[in-house]
Amino acid sequence: MKKNYLLTPGPTPLPPEVCEAQSRPIIHHRTPQFQAVLKEVTDGLKYVFQTSGDVMILTASGTGAMEAAVVNLLSAGDTAITVEGGKFGERWTELCSAYGIKPEVIKVEWGKAVDPREIERKLKANPAIKAVFTTLCETSTGVSNDIKAIGEVVKGSDAVLVVDAISGLGAVDLKTDAWSVDVCVSGSQKGLMLPPGLAFVSVSKKAWGKIDAAKCPKYYFDLKVAKKAMEKTDTPFTPAISLVIALAEALKIIRQDTLENIFIRHTKMAEATRAAMQALGLALFAPDAASDVVTAVKVPAGIDGEKLVKVMRDTYGVTIAGGQSEMKGKIFRIAHMGYIGEFDIIVGISCLEKVLKQMGYKFDLAAGVKAAQEVFLK
Amino acid sequence: MKKNYLLTPGPTPLPPEVCEAQSRPIIHHRTPQFQAVLKEVTDGLKYVFQTSGDVMILTASGTGAMEAAVVNLLSAGDTAITVEGGKFGERWTELCSAYGIKPEVIKVEWGKAVDPREIERKLKANPAIKAVFTTLCETSTGVSNDIKAIGEVVKGSDAVLVVDAISGLGAVDLKTDAWSVDVCVSGSQKGLMLPPGLAFVSVSKKAWGKIDAAKCPKYYFDLKVAKKAMEKTDTPFTPAISLVIALAEALKIIRQDTLENIFIRHTKMAEATRAAMQALGLALFAPDAASDVVTAVKVPAGIDGEKLVKVMRDTYGVTIAGGQSEMKGKIFRIAHMGYIGEFDIIVGISCLEKVLKQMGYKFDLAAGVKAAQEVFLK
Repeated sequence: MKKNYLLTPGPTPLPPEVCEAQSRPIIHHRTPQFQAVLKEVTDGLKYVFQTSGDVMILTASGTGAMEAAVVNLLSAGDTAITVEGGKFGERWTELCSAYGIKPEVIKVEWGKAVDPREIERKLKANPAIKAVFTTLCETSTGVSNDIKAIGEVVKGSDAVLVVDAISGLGAVDLKTDAWSVDVCVSGSQKGLMLPPGLAFVSVSKKAWGKIDAAKCPKYYFDLKVAKKAMEKTDTPFTPAISLVIALAEALKIIRQDTLENIFIRHTKMAEATRAAMQALGLALFAPDAASDVVTAVKVPAGIDGEKLVKVMRDTYGVTIAGGQSEMKGKIFRIAHMGYIGEFDIIVGISCLEKVLKQMGYKFDLAAGVKAAQEVFLK
Repeated sequence: MKKNYLLTPGPTPLPPEVCEAQSRPIIHHRTPQFQAVLKEVTDGLKYVFQTSGDVMILTASGTGAMEAAVVNLLSAGDTAITVEGGKFGERWTELCSAYGIKPEVIKVEWGKAVDPREIERKLKANPAIKAVFTTLCETSTGVSNDIKAIGEVVKGSDAVLVVDAISGLGAVDLKTDAWSVDVCVSGSQKGLMLPPGLAFVSVSKKAWGKIDAAKCPKYYFDLKVAKKAMEKTDTPFTPAISLVIALAEALKIIRQDTLENIFIRHTKMAEATRAAMQALGLALFAPDAASDVVTAVKVPAGIDGEKLVKVMRDTYGVTIAGGQSEMKGKIFRIAHMGYIGEFDIIVGISCLEKVLKQMGYKFDLAAGVKAAQEVFLK
């Protein structure tokens, strides 16, 4: 017997209601039956996005929604700021470059958050900048950026603020309207507790203005076409029906729980995880800007980081994430996002302790578990 | 109690194994566990595509794979033939136009198949044509095009043959390699018996040559990036994991059934459906080029076609499809594709008879059912 536990920053575990919903007999998408579901999820998404604006559903990975943001807002030759503090920030630069948009890259050391004043300086220095592409939680480093402060800086300019909130939306606070986020992009497999396959894009009035002028070629990701369909409670192309039906279940859970409670739970799980790591003598990779959805931890000297993750997963059934790109083998990442509760965190820490002990790392057994328990008891 | 029966040309009904597979706890995609599934489905797709070439999996509707074909093969300013005999043929023209590619449109009357000689003439008249975009089964009209004959015509030219086989692949014969199909595009929700959300693209050696030179901007749909990932049994972006796992189940069923048996079953279901319609005095919309996956039928004079479909669905639980675009209200379409068997066809015909009787159309009750039974008895 091997029982499996998933503590990765996407996909995150699925509630039983979401599993069940996917397994229902399929229904046709151009029917009043499916339209009722589409209406329900569109309303639910506005609650999660904290917006009264449009939120469109795309059948794609989160990257598809990122591409939708770029090609709908801009034209070849335009200039845009991209904030690169990890693998997903780099994706904005790559996307802009692919469409002939000049990226004004703000390089941020991996493990640090961007300084909003740097965005402000760049915007003032170059009024031609049309968009600022940022990341809420940079999954590759466990860093959380201060979107509220960035919104303050961008809203006075002619540029639109685009936030990759694929990791974090529905788990930590992101007030799309109140923080002046013009385009917020998300995916299904993180805070929304679904399998991957759906992506979401919110669009502000300011952003619709840019979209009307944008000339990048597009078809599948054309947001004007998506909006036109949405106005008739439809989608331009056959959507991932079973995932949309599962989304309705996930949104019911989120509404019942309320965003307020969800944010408190995530903060507590993050604090518990960080306390546990410190109690084990492990260093956080992003101590100054740690996200509340995933904790990145430095692999201690003498320990094989890739083996640690592998043994936890393949021998004991506890899946956490290793480092990506330049951080491969140097960090590991424990997610506390979506359908994960305090006892899942205890399981994760307990398994980490077991494997670290077996690998010869010195610490007091249960020190991490105890530190987490103390946070959860408060 | 209302029991539901789905007889639409996408989505098609799901086998119980596919429903169950989707409901399993989610696993992470960058693990040996998921890699084993990816390897299995890649092999299975090659069997279904009848190719030894590459078949890539995209997380998107079928239209995403159509866009992938266009943007990977061509550059703005190129010329390509598009065959327009229905809504999905028109989509090729729209896609080309969106990316600055000049479409040489071959207009085919709705309900007819394209004449391969017309493609031949256009190719000879303009050697600059780089691609020919066609449709296997034009779902909007129920027409099947002769891809084998088109392949004969295109293979001698410098152009590549691209086939939208979203509707039809895995249900009727399409020999990607033997018929010289360079890029074959498909989706999950038709012959493959899955929910929508995955799309597939096969690429021949000739097509890879074009891809190397193509300059359309792209990122999410970049097939070179997808191929590079596939070589490491990976995907460039988080795939629709639950659908890929369900795909493995669907492919097991297809392999056990064998393509040969599947094709015979579809032909028989199509013959039975056509015989039933004729026995009811109804005219086929595409008598000369009827596809074996969906039968389009003219709504008889005096009958409200939209109401017919609505009553069958909302009163009796039997969902067939109405007409799309210019055919709205003028035809209805009964699918016999994927996880549909002979008795589902009997149900569909029986319900159609019931509602036609109620709407005052004159015919002998059970005439359609009997004609279908006779075909199935042979």
